[in-house]
Amino acid sequence: MNFEEKVLSTENIFDGKVIKVDKETVELPNGKKAFREIVRHHGAVALIPITDDDKIVMIKQWREPMRKVTLEIPAGKIEPGEESDPLQTAIRELNEETRYEAENIELVTPFYTTPGFSDEEIYLYHASGLKPVSTELPQDDDEFLELVELTLPEAMSAMKEGLVCDSKTIMGLLFWQLMQ
Amino acid sequence: MNFEEKVLSTENIFDGKVIKVDKETVELPNGKKAFREIVRHHGAVALIPITDDDKIVMIKQWREPMRKVTLEIPAGKIEPGEESDPLQTAIRELNEETRYEAENIELVTPFYTTPGFSDEEIYLYHASGLKPVSTELPQDDDEFLELVELTLPEAMSAMKEGLVCDSKTIMGLLFWQLMQ
Repeated sequence: MNFEEKVLSTENIFDGKVIKVDKETVELPNGKKAFREIVRHHGAVALIPITDDDKIVMIKQWREPMRKVTLEIPAGKIEPGEESDPLQTAIRELNEETRYEAENIELVTPFYTTPGFSDEEIYLYHASGLKPVSTELPQDDDEFLELVELTLPEAMSAMKEGLVCDSKTIMGLLFWQLMQ
Repeated sequence: MNFEEKVLSTENIFDGKVIKVDKETVELPNGKKAFREIVRHHGAVALIPITDDDKIVMIKQWREPMRKVTLEIPAGKIEPGEESDPLQTAIRELNEETRYEAENIELVTPFYTTPGFSDEEIYLYHASGLKPVSTELPQDDDEFLELVELTLPEAMSAMKEGLVCDSKTIMGLLFWQLMQ
């Protein structure tokens, strides 16, 4: 079966700081036309950082799209120059957000967050052998973060309570549970 | 710690068929101003549909944002009128995409796909006791789908190969693995 859609034209709707939005006109496999609304994103990393006493390091923060406080695993956008090596982003974000560096960082899996309307890809890493960084990298000045370290049962309870509520974090907790 | 951001103004950038894009000016907890780019989405459901012979029903399809064929669990947007009862959407999408109906459908968890820039929420259901539907609901005419039924090891292999590559599907497989 041929699934591919042929792009007939692309209209850029928005060129923002974090996202770009395109509207594509495509030709479907049956020859008909359709429109696709696409959010372009530069990609990101996320980390499952596990301390030597088997706790996960998580971040409490305000998320304006949902207008609520969430508890998430550390994550951040891939900056220009880091595209070919997301591990570099992972090391930087771990420092910026948690003030830890890791003896071991391994890729668990890359994944697309929402393939229906966006090309955003996140590289999920497992970090262990954590120790405080010697040099603290500067934090973004519009980020207000609170660090929390939780056992697996505590993190799972936070999920049932709705404080842990996003896909990368739930995935991270499930991968960690399967590593036990 | 006070995390909340105060919305000073909202500018609607795009009002599409699937998404809306807003640019918000907010006041941060320290009194400074910042901008937030937000993709508004009506929400969706996704299903982990397990057959009586312990296979997961998945969908092969073209995803234009990434311009590739993916293998995903069934999913679809919550339509107007279904907002208060996403289970209704789950039953409809299971029929439309897989031609199955389920004896049991249970909510596994709701989750936000990408809290950094979107409010999209997906309700993830586990469906079992599958049998062919008596009445087939009409399919969207711009969807070209191929059904696949896989064992857990087969689905996990597809993940390692990169054909399974999106967060809701990886989450679905991990939840299924933890149910074993």
